[in-house]
Order: sequence, then C-alpha cells, then structure tokens
Amino acid sequence: MPEEPLTYRDAGVDIDEAGRALRAVVDRIQQTHDERVVGGIGAFGGLFRAEFPDCERPLLVSSIDGVGTKTKVASMVGSYRGLGKDIVNHCVNDILCQGARPLFFLDYFACGRLDVGTAATVIEGIAKGCELAGCALIGGETAEMPDMYPEGEYDLAGFAVGAVEREAILDGSRIAVGDVVLGLASSGAHSNGYSLIRRVLAKAGYGVDAARDAELVLDGTPLREALMAPTRIYVRSVLELLRELPGALKGLAHITGGGLRENVPRILPEPLAAHIDLGSWPRPALFRWLQEQGEVAEAEMTRVFNCGIGMVLVVAPEKTEVAEELLRAQGETVYRIGEVVPRVGDELQARIVGSPA
Amino acid sequence: MPEEPLTYRDAGVDIDEAGRALRAVVDRIQQTHDERVVGGIGAFGGLFRAEFPDCERPLLVSSIDGVGTKTKVASMVGSYRGLGKDIVNHCVNDILCQGARPLFFLDYFACGRLDVGTAATVIEGIAKGCELAGCALIGGETAEMPDMYPEGEYDLAGFAVGAVEREAILDGSRIAVGDVVLGLASSGAHSNGYSLIRRVLAKAGYGVDAARDAELVLDGTPLREALMAPTRIYVRSVLELLRELPGALKGLAHITGGGLRENVPRILPEPLAAHIDLGSWPRPALFRWLQEQGEVAEAEMTRVFNCGIGMVLVVAPEKTEVAEELLRAQGETVYRIGEVVPRVGDELQARIVGSPA
Repeated sequence: MPEEPLTYRDAGVDIDEAGRALRAVVDRIQQTHDERVVGGIGAFGGLFRAEFPDCERPLLVSSIDGVGTKTKVASMVGSYRGLGKDIVNHCVNDILCQGARPLFFLDYFACGRLDVGTAATVIEGIAKGCELAGCALIGGETAEMPDMYPEGEYDLAGFAVGAVEREAILDGSRIAVGDVVLGLASSGAHSNGYSLIRRVLAKAGYGVDAARDAELVLDGTPLREALMAPTRIYVRSVLELLRELPGALKGLAHITGGGLRENVPRILPEPLAAHIDLGSWPRPALFRWLQEQGEVAEAEMTRVFNCGIGMVLVVAPEKTEVAEELLRAQGETVYRIGEVVPRVGDELQARIVGSPA
Repeated sequence: MPEEPLTYRDAGVDIDEAGRALRAVVDRIQQTHDERVVGGIGAFGGLFRAEFPDCERPLLVSSIDGVGTKTKVASMVGSYRGLGKDIVNHCVNDILCQGARPLFFLDYFACGRLDVGTAATVIEGIAKGCELAGCALIGGETAEMPDMYPEGEYDLAGFAVGAVEREAILDGSRIAVGDVVLGLASSGAHSNGYSLIRRVLAKAGYGVDAARDAELVLDGTPLREALMAPTRIYVRSVLELLRELPGALKGLAHITGGGLRENVPRILPEPLAAHIDLGSWPRPALFRWLQEQGEVAEAEMTRVFNCGIGMVLVVAPEKTEVAEELLRAQGETVYRIGEVVPRVGDELQARIVGSPA
C-alpha cells in the first residue's frame, strides 16, 4: 500500500533543527565551564573531574526533577525566559538540602515540534541559571516527539549533581526538641502546583480577554509576572551559613510538591514533629488570590503550594539569631515560623496551625 | 465567580497515587544498591560515595536521554515491560563510549494521569535494567501533568553517571588510517526512529485489526515483539574488552538518533573518515520491513536507524581478530563493517557504501 517515500522529517523529526538550536547557545553553555569540565560539547557523555579538594570522604548528591505544567502557563502567557532558571534552581535547591555544593547539570527538553527560538531561549535560561548556581552545564537532550505534546508545548526536566563531605552531610539526625524552624521567602509558586493554578486561572476566566488579564495586578505585580517568577535559589546563602556557622544548621527542607505539610517531615527524626504557625509570615498576594479564586481549602494550600516559604531550615536555638542575621545579609527574607516538638501518637509530623498573616 | 472549592486532585494530580507507585517497587530499587549508596529512598537527593579505587584521576561521565515515542508504540501494543531496560541501556551505552563504568542512574517518568500499574511496571523494568548494567537506581521523579499527554501515554527519560580513569578515556584521538571498524549487532530499533516507525505502521494499516496485526511475523518474530525489543546493553562485553586487551579499542560510537551516518563521525579525528560497507552485515527483517512499507530512502535509513548495528568499535588492525573472539565469547554478534580512511575534501566523515546484505 505504500504511496510515497517517508522521511524522518515527514514524520515530524528535524535533526538539523535540533543542531541549529544547540549552535545558537553553545557560547552561553561554554561560559558555565571551568577547568573541571573536560572536552567539548557533542560527546556521548559530559565529562567532569571527580576531584573534591575540600572533602576527605566525598559523597555525590544527585537530583532529577521537572518544572511540571509551569511550561503550559509559560505558553499561555508567552514567557519562556525564566523557565531555565526554574529547572536549575529546583534541582540545586534539592541537593542543597543535604549540604551539597552543585557541580554540574544536564537538561532534558522534550517537545512535539522543535521551535529553535523557544528551545534556544529556554536553554539560554538554563545556562544563565547554571552560571548563577555555580555549576557547569555539561550535557542535555533535546527530544522532538511528534504527537506527544500539543503544538507549542513542551516538557522541561533537569538533573544536578553536587558533592558534600560525608561528615558534613545534613540528614536531620541532629535535630532535637526546641530547635527553631526558620523559613526563607520564596519568589512565587516556584514550579509546583501549576496544574491547580491552571484550574484556578480557568475558573477565574483568565486567558480569555488579554486587556482584562493585564489589569490583574497583585500587590503591584502583574499576575502574569507573579505566575512566571523563576524559582528562588538558596545555594549561596545556605552554603555561606554552613561555612560561617558550622553546626548551626541541622536540617534543610526544600518546599516543593507536597508543600510545607509533606516536605518538612522528610528531614525530621522519627519521634519529632514540627510545629509551624501560619501566622508567622505574610502570605504573598499570589497565594491569597489563588486560594480565594479557587476556594482552595487551607489544608490543601499547605499541601500543594509553598505559600511563601521556599526553604525551611532547622537551626540550633542558641545560634538562631546570628544565623538569621547572616541569611539576611545574604539577601534572604527570613521568618521564624515554628519549632521542633515531640511527636505525639499518630499525629502528622508537621503540625500546621494558625491563620495566614 | 467561584463555584466549588478546588483541590489538587480535582486538577488531576494525585500525590498519594505517586507514593503508592513508589512503594510498590521499593524492594526492587533497593536490590540495585550496594555499600556505595548512602541513606534510603525519599531524601531530597540520592547519595553515592565518590570513591574510585581503580582510578588515580577519575572523571565522571554523564548522559541524559529519553526513549522518545517508543512509549507511544508501547501503549499501542500494550507492552511496557522492556521500556525500563531501554532507558537504562541507552544511557549506559552512551557513557560507555568514553570508556566509563556505570555508577548510578535516576529516572524521570512523566504522564498525564498516573496509573500505578504502568508506572510500577516501568520502574521495575528500570530497576532490573540497573541491576544488569551494574548501576544503582538512586533517585527519580514521577511527574503527573494533567493535559500534557494523551490518556494512557507518558514520557520516559533517564540519567546515568559513570566513572573512568582520565588516562584511559576513549576519545577517538588515537584512531588512525587502517583501523578496523567493527559493528555489534543491535536487538532492534533500540529507542530511535520511533516517530518514523509510527508513520510506517500507520501507512501499513497496523493497529486497525488485531487479528491481522498478529499475523505479521518477521523472520519468526511477531512484529509487535520486534518493535518492543529492549535496547541491547554493551557495557559488560566492552568493559571486558578494555580490561583484557588494553589499547585495542580506540573509539566507540553508540548508534542512536542520527544512525550510522551521524554517530560514527562523532568519534573520528578531523582528517579521517570511516568507510562502511552496508553489505558487510545482514540487515534485520524489522528494518527491511520498515524500509519496504515506508519506501524509506537508503540514505534516510542509515541516518535514522541503527539498521542492525547498535555499537560501532574502532580497533587496531593487529588486535582485531582477538578482539572479535573476546566479544563473541561475551555473547556479542560481531561484524567487520569497514575501515578508517583519510578524509578527502568535503566528503562526509562516514562514507557508507554498498547494498544491505
């Protein structure tokens, strides 16, 4: 029954286009490299020297993650620039939770039909994010998969590897009753909860009338910008805290999918719980708007969104004040959001009380 | 305008379901761990000891990749078991090209609606693949992204890290005129060219009548099985060759997207080309059928598919015979498919001649 010869391009895959996207950003990628990166771009694997001058018994710490359907919101509002930082920062914040300094990163960009402009913008953002995170972009995969994604949409995932001295690893095991729970402000929803956000946007009639959308300004920030704010990176400030105040920091929880309710318990030893007071920090306008428009229950808010706290630190009480000062000097907005308490019976490990401020 | 409260589950994301998928396979994942893996499952980052007893100046070699739209063919024929091996083997074959031994792996499984059964089957396959590749499965991301993928479909990507001694790295720089090009048989299309395959299947009317589909048997193998055969892994046999015959192997090209035509040149120094004779190995029935049904041009076949050769080795001529023997003893099917020649003018670095046997 054959009628005409098929080519890979007929089937929707344009290998040349992928090459063009890469060449457009190769200089930006190379700017993330230092002498630890061996060889050029285009080899089968990315090469990085396994030398850890500050570590006696180094551990590699790895995380893989995606930005979820934040890409769909990006397509909706036509803003792709921040997504590269989102994926880098998400991954490096994850490995930071064990005290690791980022070494290198690789990206995965998947789309239905490759658009060089969008791909180059996203990969450029990734390179910029890597530069700010102090890690090298040593590889990536650009996958063109026809019929897999709606026109103009794509998926973005990434992978970060860092290193930490084994004795210095943050595993929460030193956390004790009375320790202070600090929260570092987030820059927005980071890259979690966007499927719920899209439902709220639909319910609020957003995306129908551009002029009406433009009028939606929350606390001085257009909703469009608030939605697309890139994930805040906590690497430099937290590494500075670890260096300047050894022992002060006992545990670190990155508030991603699962929110405060599910991420804080991940670092607590079995018999302990965190008592977090929702009234101890102001809930940013974006989350108040989402909750109101979507009539989202309070428990659901803290299970899905970071609600304004992107990173939770557990610190020794006697060192809290100086830790706060140091973090503020590094540009962080810091809140005392709770304390570590004994766990009673079957209760949840994160006891979240109070009303949002 | 709010009508009813929204939850994350309403929005199509079920966090509990993701937890169930993971718990179902946690034992299989742990079986891939040895003493180099530190800590349990569920931490923010996967931990692996950066100790390389056989290396003086170790390099980390990393690769990120996906299985492309082979997942769509898997959904079409209802066979998910082999895909886990596909993604692991694809990634470890990539890092093998620089001589690296796999250390650890992380997966990325993205879907529109999470089905615990499918996810568990795929992740179990990944764990099995890791076991066979000798690497630890130390992390992963299961992303449920409503509206991103058609019902029942998903994307699968992965990330592998290996290590190699810097002095022993395979970078093709020792390749010289007269070196022999060996090809190791593939197990099928591995995970490349599946968008073209889907077009050919559509053109051939496959997927309309199950009884008629079942009759499609190529050289004794049902088409369905031939399509879904997992990617062959070359790690053990090639590492054995490197150990037993140091210096014999000068370069290694994994035949992925871009086929023989674009992957072999990736390892050749500037002034050299590879002369590959298509008549030097039998083209497997699957590729003959795809070419015939799709009327795919010969040049397109070698640019999209591996055409029966999954890994290309460049070896010193005087050691070719013993290398072949060793590889056969390791279970590989080995062909002498060409030789290294001087590159003349602007010609392509892979000169592919002859007719398929």
